[in-house]
Amino acid sequence: MSSGVWFPTLGLVIWLCCLGPSQGGKILVVPVDGSHWLSMEILVKELVHRGHEIIVLVPETSMVIHGSENYKIEIYPVSYTKDELEEKFHKIKEGVFLNEPGIMDLFQSIQRFVEFTLIQVNGCERLLNNQSLMTQLRGEGFDLVLTDPFLPCGSILAHTFSIPAVYFLRGLPCDLNLQANKCPSPVSYVPVFFSDNTGVMTFPQRVKNMFMSFLGSFMCKMMYPHFDDLVSRHFGDITTYKDLISHGAIWLLRYDFAFEWPRPILPNMFFIGGLNCGKKAPLPADLEEFVDGSGDDGFIVFTLGSMVSNLPEEKAKQFFDAFRQIPQRVLWRYTGVPPKDVPKNVRLMKWLPQNDLLAHPKAKVFITHGGTHGVYEGICNAVPMLMFPLFGDQSDNVFRMVVRGVAEKLAAHDVTTKKILDALKKLIHDKSYKEKIVKLSQIHLDRPIEPLDLAAFWTEFVIKHKGAVHLRVAAHDLNWIQYHSLDVIGFLLIILLTVVWVMLKCCLFCTRKCCRKGAPKTKSE
Amino acid sequence: MSSGVWFPTLGLVIWLCCLGPSQGGKILVVPVDGSHWLSMEILVKELVHRGHEIIVLVPETSMVIHGSENYKIEIYPVSYTKDELEEKFHKIKEGVFLNEPGIMDLFQSIQRFVEFTLIQVNGCERLLNNQSLMTQLRGEGFDLVLTDPFLPCGSILAHTFSIPAVYFLRGLPCDLNLQANKCPSPVSYVPVFFSDNTGVMTFPQRVKNMFMSFLGSFMCKMMYPHFDDLVSRHFGDITTYKDLISHGAIWLLRYDFAFEWPRPILPNMFFIGGLNCGKKAPLPADLEEFVDGSGDDGFIVFTLGSMVSNLPEEKAKQFFDAFRQIPQRVLWRYTGVPPKDVPKNVRLMKWLPQNDLLAHPKAKVFITHGGTHGVYEGICNAVPMLMFPLFGDQSDNVFRMVVRGVAEKLAAHDVTTKKILDALKKLIHDKSYKEKIVKLSQIHLDRPIEPLDLAAFWTEFVIKHKGAVHLRVAAHDLNWIQYHSLDVIGFLLIILLTVVWVMLKCCLFCTRKCCRKGAPKTKSE
Repeated sequence: MSSGVWFPTLGLVIWLCCLGPSQGGKILVVPVDGSHWLSMEILVKELVHRGHEIIVLVPETSMVIHGSENYKIEIYPVSYTKDELEEKFHKIKEGVFLNEPGIMDLFQSIQRFVEFTLIQVNGCERLLNNQSLMTQLRGEGFDLVLTDPFLPCGSILAHTFSIPAVYFLRGLPCDLNLQANKCPSPVSYVPVFFSDNTGVMTFPQRVKNMFMSFLGSFMCKMMYPHFDDLVSRHFGDITTYKDLISHGAIWLLRYDFAFEWPRPILPNMFFIGGLNCGKKAPLPADLEEFVDGSGDDGFIVFTLGSMVSNLPEEKAKQFFDAFRQIPQRVLWRYTGVPPKDVPKNVRLMKWLPQNDLLAHPKAKVFITHGGTHGVYEGICNAVPMLMFPLFGDQSDNVFRMVVRGVAEKLAAHDVTTKKILDALKKLIHDKSYKEKIVKLSQIHLDRPIEPLDLAAFWTEFVIKHKGAVHLRVAAHDLNWIQYHSLDVIGFLLIILLTVVWVMLKCCLFCTRKCCRKGAPKTKSE
Repeated sequence: MSSGVWFPTLGLVIWLCCLGPSQGGKILVVPVDGSHWLSMEILVKELVHRGHEIIVLVPETSMVIHGSENYKIEIYPVSYTKDELEEKFHKIKEGVFLNEPGIMDLFQSIQRFVEFTLIQVNGCERLLNNQSLMTQLRGEGFDLVLTDPFLPCGSILAHTFSIPAVYFLRGLPCDLNLQANKCPSPVSYVPVFFSDNTGVMTFPQRVKNMFMSFLGSFMCKMMYPHFDDLVSRHFGDITTYKDLISHGAIWLLRYDFAFEWPRPILPNMFFIGGLNCGKKAPLPADLEEFVDGSGDDGFIVFTLGSMVSNLPEEKAKQFFDAFRQIPQRVLWRYTGVPPKDVPKNVRLMKWLPQNDLLAHPKAKVFITHGGTHGVYEGICNAVPMLMFPLFGDQSDNVFRMVVRGVAEKLAAHDVTTKKILDALKKLIHDKSYKEKIVKLSQIHLDRPIEPLDLAAFWTEFVIKHKGAVHLRVAAHDLNWIQYHSLDVIGFLLIILLTVVWVMLKCCLFCTRKCCRKGAPKTKSE
């Protein structure tokens, strides 16, 4: 053991283990209003419970985000009124009960999406120009932005404050989230939204899928220019919204492969579908009494989501007439004007504890519009569904459930008493619906970790490690040509062609030489 | 509530919840001998602990798989002797200490891989033709085959008995596992094995990556024909080994993105890298005393894996001479003939508790060949590594660690005392190695669920649900042309060209018409 001199003691590196009880981080939550907030709030409360300090940034016009004792709320002024926002939202759902959707409705939907998001993007710009609030927020020293990238404000704030962003969403229109995260989506087996395709496609279906994929790219160009404008006005180095959100550290997706079609994924995508049906509360006494009293016939839960609580009178009548003819009791979230002769088996409510009701063993059918929150609650409680897709991703969600044999679909615009009765009859009498949804439910619920814990874990991971760079694919550094190796293929082709050309030239040269050698000989001859 | 007649009571569907304490399944384990078994055995023991009945199918020539009180072993006769197998294995590692590997060694390695696997494939065929044992195994009524697809027997038995297979592996040569599972691997940012590329590549590196990818496909064709022959002889409908293993329900991969480069994955791939360093035991008293006595200088752990326990005398001398000059104590797994003057700070052992030693706070450097088991133990215990890749995937593993700045590499064939001393000096004195591996270790260990629990969970999932079809991508139903949508692109191009052609014809026709109309006018004029 000579020359110990040049080997001085290495100072003991103190290994501050990250795995002990989580240290509290400071999180800026930038939510999206409406139903999007409902599941994000569950995560926010869990993070508060785990000792994190949270400030939720809310526009003054918020429809469903209100104060809480669990977390702080910072309200910021915007350039539009609540009425204007509601009017824009109303436009989105306008007409769904009246006419069959046609091809032109797609463009109208895009137009309305743009109008609905535009005023909120403008509201965001006002926030960004609100110097005092921005200074205050910067001074808070947040570790992380938790946001829903359906609107751009959260991502912009994360980039402005140079802190990592965790995204919480189901998906963005035209799969912008997958494009931004560079997630491969082969059109040959990954069905495009609204294509009415499953993973297994015939040739015509694959043609349709590719066509819909082109249409999706075109839609993307129509849907996000105001997002891009806002981003490029604020950052010199980033010019599109897609580029901005590509910096997201972790994507918490309200996905579950009991519901979605299997597809390629990336290591920074985590699946928290069903997060909203984790916790159940006992029913209020009067409701408990009502549903218990339904006997063997059981009861039906009827809601059209948090944003649609009533129907046109004529449509509502069809339902009332149908419910009058069934032995089941019905709990209906309905804020419209009730008819004089509401059937005795129907209870109308302004709000109902949907998940707790569906968890009741006597729940027979769930009548729903097919929003993902409701669908997951239907799946996790194993209740067959009668579905009325209204707008957004709902028709695609409904298609998935119908294909899996756990739901029946009716079009909202031509619903009749007979159709409702027929569908309910099938759902209640044909045991296959219940059997299939029980199976789906078992698969969905059989998971190594609860979605809420998974979401909280990865949020905390990003706080502790200041990001999740080791999960980010290097594809982000490549342009389209490089990503598809077209430059490499081109280069190899040039080399190949050059080699072939040189070889040909050599052959030609040799042949000529031989011919020439032959020619004088002939001459001399 | 009229016409209750047509709505009879729906029989109460009993929901047999899958989430309670797991019911024991019956598992056939078909392992691969050698180091592959070391981590699989951890899972096998965990499954036994969880109440599953397990039979491990072992060839009579097994090198490291012996009986256990935890699980049953079924030994089957094979057509080769233990000496023959060891000779084949010896050939694989032959020469690694003598010469610098050249391009021709690649083909020699393939040849030796084929020879090494061929006799085991023949051994498998003998098992398949062993009617009495096959009848006995069939009669056991297994729920699942847990196997390492490095050899084909497990997959063949799963298909023969029509039961699902769970695969447990790090990867297969030439990425056959990824190809079989239809996992996208864009060559633009997913480095090909042995390419010495990281995820971020320059243009020449991407060219090399594509070239290596072609080479990989070529290697695949050379490496698996005897696997294919065996498969096609036994199944009419499946003709290649790749097709056979594509039916795997779940792929438990000894991957972790603290070690691997981020890449696209599929929903049926689960990452259990580091499973082997989960449990730690206290050191035996004499070892504890030896390492505790190393003082501030600490100690070095030196092993070259379970399969290589000694070195050529000349190489060993270089190490002894190096260790003589350092203040650290050294624990060396060495079964060769020791020199007369073994330095006092060196303890030679036939076997050592590697993971427990590395977990000791005085462990300064881990001298290793770069097998994945050792690498994960180095990472999880945050010990910088001096690496000597020998064969198989080791040079690629070593490259990853060196690039991450947590290891130094020396070539086994030209190791000298000076090189060893210089490398150890760097690893111990330059704090960046320790700092970086502490960071890597924290990232690796910060996970929502322990790898062993994850592996056991998904194995049990497949037993309970008789597979995991909902995680299997529909790409398996497509051929190469369909997968890449070339038929759809061709079809759309034909339509496009037809439309253009028809339009051109129309234009031409109209132009001619106009010209003709013009012509008589001119004439009459």
